Amino acid sequence: MEELEQRITKEGVVIDNEILKVDSFINHQIDVKLLKKICAYLTKDFQGADKILTIETSGIAFAVGASECLNDIPVVFAKKSRSKIVDENNVYTYQVKSFTRGTVSTITIDKKYLHKGEKVLIIDDFMAEGNAGLGLINICKEAGAQVIGVGIAVCKSFQGGKKAIEDLGYKVVCAADIVGFKDGKTIFNAEK
Amino acid sequence: MEELEQRITKEGVVIDNEILKVDSFINHQIDVKLLKKICAYLTKDFQGADKILTIETSGIAFAVGASECLNDIPVVFAKKSRSKIVDENNVYTYQVKSFTRGTVSTITIDKKYLHKGEKVLIIDDFMAEGNAGLGLINICKEAGAQVIGVGIAVCKSFQGGKKAIEDLGYKVVCAADIVGFKDGKTIFNAEK
Repeated sequence: MEELEQRITKEGVVIDNEILKVDSFINHQIDVKLLKKICAYLTKDFQGADKILTIETSGIAFAVGASECLNDIPVVFAKKSRSKIVDENNVYTYQVKSFTRGTVSTITIDKKYLHKGEKVLIIDDFMAEGNAGLGLINICKEAGAQVIGVGIAVCKSFQGGKKAIEDLGYKVVCAADIVGFKDGKTIFNAEK
Repeated sequence: MEELEQRITKEGVVIDNEILKVDSFINHQIDVKLLKKICAYLTKDFQGADKILTIETSGIAFAVGASECLNDIPVVFAKKSRSKIVDENNVYTYQVKSFTRGTVSTITIDKKYLHKGEKVLIIDDFMAEGNAGLGLINICKEAGAQVIGVGIAVCKSFQGGKKAIEDLGYKVVCAADIVGFKDGKTIFNAEK
């Protein structure tokens, strides 16, 4: 998606040729006009989804935007931390490593909110090694829900997550597909 | 807002006469149709805002919905945890206690995303003692931004937060205004 790529080129900051900081429009301040265009792009091949699944934190904004492109279907977000309001006896859990934070956390989804046969579209703001996406796919499998695809705003595909998920047979749509960083600049997939 | 109150009555679970669990439509699974109606209600008195300010996690969904009711103005969400992508030398911080989780966390906003004179509408999904709201108001003061109001989806006003913020001179709009819990039931403010 050209507008997003241009924005990343203009405002993104590459740190140590590994991390891309886009907090001026994606994950601290959110440009809602751009978010709506990204969500339209991510959902166009996934009409017919019953539910959007994401993971806190910044995936939530894109999940709501994606829902609005798909007749306001429900959004479920996996929780990263435990809370008094979660019934721990009735949850799906999965261990997920965060590439950016370097931490491992247990993600949790209440079994009430994922059902057998549901068509699930997974949405997130970022993908690096794909651990969050793989975790959500595994939880969907456990629930018997059908993942119809994965939509990612900014995918650092050279870090392996996109391929890992495609190799499992899932379609992955990325609004910006980054194949590498070089000298502090972002290089996008030219094939699209 | 009657539809939200009816939904809370129908699906909300009161725990220990203190905590209201509404994770079937607000803060784990999100009913996006209802979210849009809540956001229209919360924003109607705050046309002219320049920016929506919220706090992760579940405030983000309502902040995006509110932005969409106000010409897609930017959303900024305060972060609760540190990340490699935050420049710690250039942030506003505030210590906030979570009523539900019983923990204290430092919330952080990059100084680049709050400006002097900006008209800020604070949005969140829940308010109990008002600590998150008071933290965001304090950060806005420090930045010289003008808080034009506070919009809360579900306000447990008997826990003091709404009054504390109103006593500082701010208008607080709540889509559901809860004045107490009794025998596991939710009692709403009848004055509205």
